[in-house]
Amino acid sequence: MPTINLGKIAEVLNCPPPAQGALTAITGVAALEDAGPTELSLLTSEKYLKQFAATRAAAVLVDKKVKLRPDAPPACVLWVDDAELAMARVLELFAPPTPRPPSGVDATAQVDSTAQLADGVAVGPLTVIGARCRIGRETVIHAGVILSDDVSIGETCEIFPHVTIRQRITIGHRVTIHANSVLGTDGFGYRWDGSRHVKVPQIGTVVIEDDVEIGSCVCIDRAKFGVTRIGKGTKIDNLVQIAHNVTIGPHCIIVGQAGLAGSAKLGAGVVLGGQAAVRDHIVIGDGAMAAACAAIAEDVEAGAIVSGMPALPHRQSLREQAALRRLPDLVVQVRKLQEREGKDQD
Amino acid sequence: MPTINLGKIAEVLNCPPPAQGALTAITGVAALEDAGPTELSLLTSEKYLKQFAATRAAAVLVDKKVKLRPDAPPACVLWVDDAELAMARVLELFAPPTPRPPSGVDATAQVDSTAQLADGVAVGPLTVIGARCRIGRETVIHAGVILSDDVSIGETCEIFPHVTIRQRITIGHRVTIHANSVLGTDGFGYRWDGSRHVKVPQIGTVVIEDDVEIGSCVCIDRAKFGVTRIGKGTKIDNLVQIAHNVTIGPHCIIVGQAGLAGSAKLGAGVVLGGQAAVRDHIVIGDGAMAAACAAIAEDVEAGAIVSGMPALPHRQSLREQAALRRLPDLVVQVRKLQEREGKDQD
Amino acid sequence: MPTINLGKIAEVLNCPPPAQGALTAITGVAALEDAGPTELSLLTSEKYLKQFAATRAAAVLVDKKVKLRPDAPPACVLWVDDAELAMARVLELFAPPTPRPPSGVDATAQVDSTAQLADGVAVGPLTVIGARCRIGRETVIHAGVILSDDVSIGETCEIFPHVTIRQRITIGHRVTIHANSVLGTDGFGYRWDGSRHVKVPQIGTVVIEDDVEIGSCVCIDRAKFGVTRIGKGTKIDNLVQIAHNVTIGPHCIIVGQAGLAGSAKLGAGVVLGGQAAVRDHIVIGDGAMAAACAAIAEDVEAGAIVSGMPALPHRQSLREQAALRRLPDLVVQVRKLQEREGKDQD
Repeated sequence: MPTINLGKIAEVLNCPPPAQGALTAITGVAALEDAGPTELSLLTSEKYLKQFAATRAAAVLVDKKVKLRPDAPPACVLWVDDAELAMARVLELFAPPTPRPPSGVDATAQVDSTAQLADGVAVGPLTVIGARCRIGRETVIHAGVILSDDVSIGETCEIFPHVTIRQRITIGHRVTIHANSVLGTDGFGYRWDGSRHVKVPQIGTVVIEDDVEIGSCVCIDRAKFGVTRIGKGTKIDNLVQIAHNVTIGPHCIIVGQAGLAGSAKLGAGVVLGGQAAVRDHIVIGDGAMAAACAAIAEDVEAGAIVSGMPALPHRQSLREQAALRRLPDLVVQVRKLQEREGKDQD
Repeated sequence: MPTINLGKIAEVLNCPPPAQGALTAITGVAALEDAGPTELSLLTSEKYLKQFAATRAAAVLVDKKVKLRPDAPPACVLWVDDAELAMARVLELFAPPTPRPPSGVDATAQVDSTAQLADGVAVGPLTVIGARCRIGRETVIHAGVILSDDVSIGETCEIFPHVTIRQRITIGHRVTIHANSVLGTDGFGYRWDGSRHVKVPQIGTVVIEDDVEIGSCVCIDRAKFGVTRIGKGTKIDNLVQIAHNVTIGPHCIIVGQAGLAGSAKLGAGVVLGGQAAVRDHIVIGDGAMAAACAAIAEDVEAGAIVSGMPALPHRQSLREQAALRRLPDLVVQVRKLQEREGKDQD
Repeated sequence: MPTINLGKIAEVLNCPPPAQGALTAITGVAALEDAGPTELSLLTSEKYLKQFAATRAAAVLVDKKVKLRPDAPPACVLWVDDAELAMARVLELFAPPTPRPPSGVDATAQVDSTAQLADGVAVGPLTVIGARCRIGRETVIHAGVILSDDVSIGETCEIFPHVTIRQRITIGHRVTIHANSVLGTDGFGYRWDGSRHVKVPQIGTVVIEDDVEIGSCVCIDRAKFGVTRIGKGTKIDNLVQIAHNVTIGPHCIIVGQAGLAGSAKLGAGVVLGGQAAVRDHIVIGDGAMAAACAAIAEDVEAGAIVSGMPALPHRQSLREQAALRRLPDLVVQVRKLQEREGKDQD
């Protein structure tokens, strides 16, 4: 990682320079308890004052809302409006470059002669690109990727190893797909003919809009007909299942291991927590949020927060859970009421 | 996609020809709201009459049970017994062929000299086939597949990219395995020797019977000893976990992200909803169904429907959920009863 | 598989030799109902006496705690202290070798000239090893593995096909990683800038300590900064999600499809059941156990057993579930109490 002096960091963060140590060379970033004497750390809350007091960090980004104790350590303090946000900017300074294949096609890649690769495209070793694929400028396709025929990928995308993209899939610009994900598998659809499940052809496709990021081991199935669509700027974590004909709006966040059944429809800015499940044909309104493990079996209004199994409005879920904590006692109380009532009636 | 005229479609569906427009050229299939003037759509329920009234589709498959309003659009109507089923047949007409490697072995594939490939087998680029593998007639193995030694695959199977099949696995005829799935990983078994987990050898295998379809990123582990078996005609969705020594009967449906722990046993025609979980050694009878997210910790009788966590008979689950919705009020009611009783006793 | 005579098996198990048949050749191992006349089986509980009575097995390992009926079959009995443990030892005798590429680098592998491979390393076909990777003695890297730059792997590890390991990851000795898993994907972190999710660089890494085994299709993300760490001797099943900055202690067991959100911290010897979920920043103490499907949203003390959604101490969970089974009746009982009270007050 690069070495950057503290004054430069303060300048980038547009915060007051440190009282001293502007020339201190910072070599990286670490948590308060892990940081060495040339590293920068952060303090976001008074919960961590103890770790702050003991830190060996050269300097600490401290949230303006935090009150330091007099026993604060000798570390330089950079006061910032939002330590998390400031740290995100610092990480950009220290981020080492991702190893990428160089521009051009590796000698061991198998690129069909009818594929069109724009300027600056990089294709790594042992990658396969099918007939009539079109790859936009500066897009990087790492080693061991397999694109079937008629795949279209926009500009400055990055496709990591062992991704499989099936035929006729369209991907926008600035899309990242992490390792071992699969786009365009047939949707899961059968009809029972009385003796066996007969496959319903899945002749649709998948569209990934601009600025989407897709994690590892994610499955996004092609539509039965029409399109399975992931909206602009949406971010999808690892091991997520997206069934045929799902529509996800722009700027959604889908956390790891969540699953969306066929034809589910998410508006803009929806957040699904980890392992959340969405039933087929459910509609979730703009800006709605589902807690981790929520099992969504009914439509969710825009802006609503839901949780639980089945998912309910979060306040109701909390109220029911609180009541459930008291239920074993309640059973006893009701029995006593019945007994005493019985006596009264004797 | 091909162009097919509407009269031909009516003929295939064995339904009355349209009043007019038998010669209209149909170029594809779309939902009512998406269809263009050369596309066919479908109407399965009166819920969608509004979309039907506004559709630009050339023609619509309409379920006989649907009552149309007088303001129906000018689209030709094909009356059918079951619009979903009729559409499945139409999709077969329009389904574009799946891109496949040609018969023979790609020059970049690595096929062991002891492997036996029957007539018409296709092996894609950069695929590896181990010693003593046997591949049946007309089977297609796409690019980037890895078969270890002694794998047996039947006739007219299709194995998609980045599938890994470990040693000594047997696969029947007409089996499809979608991209990035793994068959034959060691079962997850250890014994604690007082200081560490010692691996229990997993020396069994996996048998996939005829006509099975397996989604993407599915894991099916080899047995500790004996066999992990997937029955004839069973269909498995993406990201499903099937542990060692599981036995799945014929014609089951296992929806995405479901998980079966070791030695679970499913009868014939069992349906597991998405994210359903089955505890180890559980037995599920023929034709039983588990709702999405059901957590099955006890045996399930044939024909039963279960849901919830823990999974209960579905009616009981619904009754408990309905009662749970009223629980916060119930707590208050009981408190009031207690208070009034207290007063009575004063 | 090898053939081993029964006397030899008794000797290895250090148990009394069979009354007869010490010279019987055993060819393998099977369940009581599946075993043929040259196979060994096991009986762990009286639950399976019926299968025992009908078995065709040549011999059966019987737990000393089991009482046999007089109608026991003619199979030789080997009495052992713990039939499961004894069988694990027998499986070691019968375990066929795992097919592995031979020592050296396959001609089709792409190994960067700056990578350092120690003696006895095996690299399979079509594997890619990036710049400055270091691979320890006797480590086996199967076909189709992709290591990015600066990956360090210890001695006698085994990395199965289609594994992706991203840059700067460190792996200890005797580590096994099963097929199609991904280590070192960027952690899932964004900040909302008012109009879009901006990626927070994930500049940290992953450390896998000695003797870890990782299943198939597992995702372990790199830290935002610092390290995502899997402790010595921990075993991870298939399809598990481990987010950035998670710390897992030594000798944990993480069952299939479990998910750990960012910065979760597990002590030593923790067991997470299948599909269990752990919220971000949660701390789970040494030796704690979570049942399958537990949704852990609060810290768990050392040694605690938790279950349910949300996860509660297991006893409490059971008590609440028992009460919930009675809740529909309770609603009726309270209504009746209210009605009678109403009458009393008339």
